[in-house]
Amino acid sequence: MTLPIPADPATLRIVVEKIARQVEDAMRGDLTRALHGNDPLLAEVLKYALFGGGKRLRPLLVVLSSRLCGRHDADLYLLASAFEYLHVATLIHDDVIDHADQRRGRPSVGTKYGMAAAILAGDWLHARSMHLIGRLTGTEGLEIFCGATAAMVDGEFLQLRHVADISINEDRYFEVIQRKTGRLIASTCEIGALYAGADRSRQKALGHYGSKIGAAFQVVDDLLDYQGDQEATGKKVGNDFIEGKLTLPLLHALLKASPAERELLADLITGDRTQPGAYARLYRSVEKLGGFLSARSTAENLVEEAVTELDIFSGCTDQESHGLLVGLARFILERNR
Amino acid sequence: MTLPIPADPATLRIVVEKIARQVEDAMRGDLTRALHGNDPLLAEVLKYALFGGGKRLRPLLVVLSSRLCGRHDADLYLLASAFEYLHVATLIHDDVIDHADQRRGRPSVGTKYGMAAAILAGDWLHARSMHLIGRLTGTEGLEIFCGATAAMVDGEFLQLRHVADISINEDRYFEVIQRKTGRLIASTCEIGALYAGADRSRQKALGHYGSKIGAAFQVVDDLLDYQGDQEATGKKVGNDFIEGKLTLPLLHALLKASPAERELLADLITGDRTQPGAYARLYRSVEKLGGFLSARSTAENLVEEAVTELDIFSGCTDQESHGLLVGLARFILERNR
Repeated sequence: MTLPIPADPATLRIVVEKIARQVEDAMRGDLTRALHGNDPLLAEVLKYALFGGGKRLRPLLVVLSSRLCGRHDADLYLLASAFEYLHVATLIHDDVIDHADQRRGRPSVGTKYGMAAAILAGDWLHARSMHLIGRLTGTEGLEIFCGATAAMVDGEFLQLRHVADISINEDRYFEVIQRKTGRLIASTCEIGALYAGADRSRQKALGHYGSKIGAAFQVVDDLLDYQGDQEATGKKVGNDFIEGKLTLPLLHALLKASPAERELLADLITGDRTQPGAYARLYRSVEKLGGFLSARSTAENLVEEAVTELDIFSGCTDQESHGLLVGLARFILERNR
Repeated sequence: MTLPIPADPATLRIVVEKIARQVEDAMRGDLTRALHGNDPLLAEVLKYALFGGGKRLRPLLVVLSSRLCGRHDADLYLLASAFEYLHVATLIHDDVIDHADQRRGRPSVGTKYGMAAAILAGDWLHARSMHLIGRLTGTEGLEIFCGATAAMVDGEFLQLRHVADISINEDRYFEVIQRKTGRLIASTCEIGALYAGADRSRQKALGHYGSKIGAAFQVVDDLLDYQGDQEATGKKVGNDFIEGKLTLPLLHALLKASPAERELLADLITGDRTQPGAYARLYRSVEKLGGFLSARSTAENLVEEAVTELDIFSGCTDQESHGLLVGLARFILERNR
């Protein structure tokens, strides 16, 4: 078996940026066509929402997955745009739901243009994304995509149900993040493969890869919520705790806690979480119980499992795309924003 | 040419109720399948939103259009459900945007379950509707459907732009209502025909019929906003005026007003519209200038134009469906809620 050469970080960055630019060009072109004759404010709101930074992770996965399966053409970037549309629609609606006034260091869409414009712009992006997926990958792609979208909504409901619920276990945690993040990221890879006409086993392998890096991505997100540098992430630490979201570091800490330590943690979680010092006390406990190290090791395992899913592509002609997907999976562990 | 016999109101009511029940059964079956394993609160919110009355006009048009074109099977009711899903998704999001706490005499979804649940349930219905349209009518149907959805969003933006704008003319008014209502209703008929495998000329004829009855429906809605019986409509009169929406009765009044009368109307529209007596003064002016009668006559003309669009079906085998669509168009003028 020929092992792929994982892309080094510098090469990865160059490729990632090049693809991001091509996806942005595709989005601009698509908006111009789709919005012809429409209200100019709608166009302004959509451009503000879509071109405010963003890692373009989902489009990147679509492009690399399709390339790995042998198809690389102009419409691929339009297909990739659909995933960014859906992702941004979700962020816009989430910010309305959370009354978040900032996103990526700028006023959120709702703050800048009002709630009506935010909800409507999200709906527009939602519809446009499905339109593109249907047009470019037919009903098979649409079925995967809509399933992932419905799962995201379901994951949000599941999460609301478990606010400050200390009986939640690791399985349930992974169920929530699979629905909220994993399935959509899996669908980017699977639909990329479908677009390229890959056989079912290759589609599935890429889907599993996506599902696992999606989970790793979320675990790293949860770690950044505790340990991130506000300058880099643009977010304050401790949000998840304050909102009553029990994420992996805390769940791992609870598993290792003595009855007395568990009681202390439970008091902090079910008490007034905004009280001065509550977050600092929780942080120290989680650290002492090894929750951060243990969650990190889970993320590392997920990434290695993701990489193994791609073995089916060993020896395929496009070793570069294979190496980029391996490098990208590993890079998730390094990200700081 | 054999003219169809328009369905009489009693027959129409029986058919409408029967189809509504079959669509509701289809929605229940679809929700059971789609929500298997999902969070129970999501199911509860969706059922609350979907089964709270509603005229089921959009599904009815899908069913009758497909029947008229020769196809009538079980999946037709699933296809019809997709339009109700989208319609209800729009109502849920509209109520969040308008901070409306009531809908059809019950608490709105946002009031009962919170804004987060309302936005998310709308998104779920949105995704599910596109999924069904794609599955049952392929990318051709999806393209029509997504175009109509995007137009609805655009129509809302266009309407926001013209709040209290007395320079708006009748053409612009019809442009707004085409985008907000007409195109989706046209798409119900067009997609019903497409599902039945009708040729392009029949699809187009049904699309035009839908577009015109959609416009008539909206004009009647605007009249009900002035003249409706609150008991029947469940809404207070005068909302449009208070929100600064200049609808057809007022636009027709402005056209016939003398310079002095126009100035009086302009003062009311651009002044404090919630001031006691402002609405009553406006109402009297519009009535005196014949705005209500003239708008009603526009609705009547639209309905007759809609009926004429169906001439292409004269002499076709399903005279019953033809008669029902004619009866339904005329019934729009009689509706009081």
